[in-house]
Amino acid sequence: MEYPRQLKALIESFSKLPGVGRKTAERLAFHIFSDMTEEDTTLFATSLAEVKHSLKRCKICHNITDGNELCSICKDEERDQSLVMVVETIRDIFMMEKMQTFSGTYHVLNGAINFANGIGIEDLTIQDLLKRVEEGIIKEIILATNATVEGETTSRYIKALLDDKDVLITRIAHGLPVGGDIQYADEMTLLKAIEGRRKY
Amino acid sequence: MEYPRQLKALIESFSKLPGVGRKTAERLAFHIFSDMTEEDTTLFATSLAEVKHSLKRCKICHNITDGNELCSICKDEERDQSLVMVVETIRDIFMMEKMQTFSGTYHVLNGAINFANGIGIEDLTIQDLLKRVEEGIIKEIILATNATVEGETTSRYIKALLDDKDVLITRIAHGLPVGGDIQYADEMTLLKAIEGRRKY
Repeated sequence: MEYPRQLKALIESFSKLPGVGRKTAERLAFHIFSDMTEEDTTLFATSLAEVKHSLKRCKICHNITDGNELCSICKDEERDQSLVMVVETIRDIFMMEKMQTFSGTYHVLNGAINFANGIGIEDLTIQDLLKRVEEGIIKEIILATNATVEGETTSRYIKALLDDKDVLITRIAHGLPVGGDIQYADEMTLLKAIEGRRKY
Repeated sequence: MEYPRQLKALIESFSKLPGVGRKTAERLAFHIFSDMTEEDTTLFATSLAEVKHSLKRCKICHNITDGNELCSICKDEERDQSLVMVVETIRDIFMMEKMQTFSGTYHVLNGAINFANGIGIEDLTIQDLLKRVEEGIIKEIILATNATVEGETTSRYIKALLDDKDVLITRIAHGLPVGGDIQYADEMTLLKAIEGRRKY
């Protein structure tokens, strides 16, 4: 006995999502068929199409925008255009914005250099960042890529690329997270925490 | 900074799926926006709508059908209509059919009795099963609900309900799974394995 064609197609679609294996995809597809209301399913299908068709990327920083050329941050004249935080993904912007203290702008790289997964320099928006720097408005670039091998590699590459430009390049601090217990910290974190110590 | 309306709606939709929390829903929604191709997204949205609108449930056994009144198993004249395996979900039918040895038909309960989650007898298709039995064709009912408290409760309820009917009621065997190691089996499984022992 085979799954009906339509169900098979839905299982395929769910399988394409990151972190969703075959079994989970089947479970989700059956959930749609058996348990999700007609209204919720229609809303789901509509949102999928809308997210793909009516949302765009900011021409300057590659953040998400609701159809406009520029995102709400780049458009905001109160934000400091001379201070740019470089992040891997759009989601990182939303995390940073939760602090409600950063007054600069952003640049989304669309990932990090990962040769093992075939993500090279040309897949990221590094060239666009270089162009922004060459416009001469940017005074400081905060490298806020992840504290992973890929994030570190990407930050180092950008640092090397911009080294001869008249711009201050900083890296976010690594160390013990707030509320963190030394007992549970890994060696690299402890090393970074000690290296990055400051006068108390 | 807020998520655009369309993205928020998609995050909401993903959150409604079982086992998908807020963070995962956000990750999936951003994946659709940033990484899924336009073609794949359209296919995803179409399958969602199709699964809900063009697939139906079998009038006899509540299995999934591709729009017909009866499922391919109930329609199949070579399947034994007098032998009915009672399962909790449609997915269980697909698991059973993988064996390619069961020649009877099925009855999907749409879940199991679970008072804690508010799933009572009237939420299941037990009344339909009773009607099928009263038609007089069924000779044996194999109770193949899960080996959980809910599955066991449901099987016991059905057994009690059909006790005065002229139909043989059996329960699938519980015991050590094939390839299973006694060292890793739990006490209940071992107990069931010993209780259910057969002449060798």
